[in-house]
Amino acid sequence: MSHPDLDVIAIGNAIVDVMAPCEDALIERMGLVRGGMTLVDTDRAHELYEVMGPAREISGGSAANTLAGLAALGANCAFIGQVADDQLGEVFAHDIRASGIAFATAARTGNPPTARCLIFVTPDGQRTMNTFLGASQFLPADALDEATIAAAKVLYLEGYLWDPEEPRAAMRRAIAASRNAGRKVAFTLSDAFVIARHGDDFRQMIAAGEIDILFANHIELAALTGYDDFHDGIAALRDSVPLLVVTRSADGAVAVSGGEWVEVPAEPIERVVDTTGAGDLFAAGFLFGHVRGRGLHDCLKLGAICAAEIISHYGARPEANLKELTAPVA
Amino acid sequence: MSHPDLDVIAIGNAIVDVMAPCEDALIERMGLVRGGMTLVDTDRAHELYEVMGPAREISGGSAANTLAGLAALGANCAFIGQVADDQLGEVFAHDIRASGIAFATAARTGNPPTARCLIFVTPDGQRTMNTFLGASQFLPADALDEATIAAAKVLYLEGYLWDPEEPRAAMRRAIAASRNAGRKVAFTLSDAFVIARHGDDFRQMIAAGEIDILFANHIELAALTGYDDFHDGIAALRDSVPLLVVTRSADGAVAVSGGEWVEVPAEPIERVVDTTGAGDLFAAGFLFGHVRGRGLHDCLKLGAICAAEIISHYGARPEANLKELTAPVA
Repeated sequence: MSHPDLDVIAIGNAIVDVMAPCEDALIERMGLVRGGMTLVDTDRAHELYEVMGPAREISGGSAANTLAGLAALGANCAFIGQVADDQLGEVFAHDIRASGIAFATAARTGNPPTARCLIFVTPDGQRTMNTFLGASQFLPADALDEATIAAAKVLYLEGYLWDPEEPRAAMRRAIAASRNAGRKVAFTLSDAFVIARHGDDFRQMIAAGEIDILFANHIELAALTGYDDFHDGIAALRDSVPLLVVTRSADGAVAVSGGEWVEVPAEPIERVVDTTGAGDLFAAGFLFGHVRGRGLHDCLKLGAICAAEIISHYGARPEANLKELTAPVA
Repeated sequence: MSHPDLDVIAIGNAIVDVMAPCEDALIERMGLVRGGMTLVDTDRAHELYEVMGPAREISGGSAANTLAGLAALGANCAFIGQVADDQLGEVFAHDIRASGIAFATAARTGNPPTARCLIFVTPDGQRTMNTFLGASQFLPADALDEATIAAAKVLYLEGYLWDPEEPRAAMRRAIAASRNAGRKVAFTLSDAFVIARHGDDFRQMIAAGEIDILFANHIELAALTGYDDFHDGIAALRDSVPLLVVTRSADGAVAVSGGEWVEVPAEPIERVVDTTGAGDLFAAGFLFGHVRGRGLHDCLKLGAICAAEIISHYGARPEANLKELTAPVA
């Protein structure tokens, strides 16, 4: 398979989100990490599904969501991720391909089933995620097509997937393939728990100059650098990361590259319905600007518009026409 | 299992809806029956899923949707329907139980899989349904618990399920159980295609006085009676159906019982997003009023409010708080 003008290829978890509104009391009663992502085993997943209200299923997965945004904006994308040979795997594969994204990873037969993420959305729109990784954690390194990776301007990697061993090995191989081809490697830190477990890996990769574009929110930045103040955190990283992008929820976002420091506010929105995918879609807009050669301000602005769209409805895949929404910047 | 104060027990298809927006051109290109429900086999289901955009999965099934509305209003309900022992079956069972509805039908092992309905929603909000019935059509008569049926004020049956043989036999047995217990039988005609195939059965049941409450839209009424004018259609049925409820889309609804004829307009709504479930939720509101002993006007009004809620968002299961929405009538 060849993609002569691929913009972004991503490796990430292949997950179907199972989402339902819930009252704040349930978060406390079930001992959930409000606003965070927690990995759960089969028993805990069943226990949580038991107490979840009527739900809807929408394809998710952090990097896959980012690609869905990129594709909606007009970028040429490919995804690598592991589903099982089951109904939810079929749903995930359908949705990603129907978004216009190349997806060639073969479904894995037998157990475990396709990954799902049980997402409880509280009345303030905050999402609390509980992920059963299932098949997703068994992405083998040989699922990579190095020629395709070399053909993409940007390789985008999701920190969540650094946790399981096989995908981590696959991602290390992908980084090498991308760098050997003179391409750029973009990495999102995903969640503080990932940094708690693998921060040393990340710091080492950054020091080795293996990460060209780093996405983090302010909490992840603090976890990675040890500095609570985000200015201090950025100061600690800016010399070793060519392009650093930090999102700050309602406080907007910052991009720092060499001597440049650019900030944008968050886009105003009527009501935060569900924050799931906010960071993913921010990355989509930013990367779209980046692969189209836009300046930092436009990249940030595109990210902010895409993030605003995704938090105005349930689910982490875009619903509105992102091309139209971003037309004022494009 | 005993339900001493069950309001409504329903027998229906156990379906997961797979929904996506689509352009009008696709409806024509794929030869779909715009606004209708068409049964599809495995091959056609695959063909249609191929051309469908990124979708979301939400539990559906006509009678099951009606129960979800009834339960949200505070009624005590039970559902009988056949899922397979697979992921979508698990989704359906979870959602119906999470809605507070008793559901005891055992999942069927092996093929075919759980029913799904591929729903294309055009920009005007109209839904075009393509149903792969799968396991749903193999509901066996022995799945019925006649004591539970006898304990429910109303037995609610979905015309869609009259088509396959086993569920039809189950429903005939359920009608007998309900009538022997002195309960009421409510029937929804579901779609003109069902009437084309089974109109003689329905006319016979009506003539035999086996249906106490009949739900139809104006198109189904015409198909059943042979009269295009809805006044003529109602005139043809009113003497043999104790309570006749006819919905007329944006033109509101009519209930006729004995000498009474009551009409209500449709509830005003900002934008029709997706008409899926409009009739189902109208029936929910109406039946809720009925089991609570309300007059025809209130029953119709409750139906209209619930229908307006469901067409203002994707999916045929209520999202807003129906108790609050109907408070002015309750």
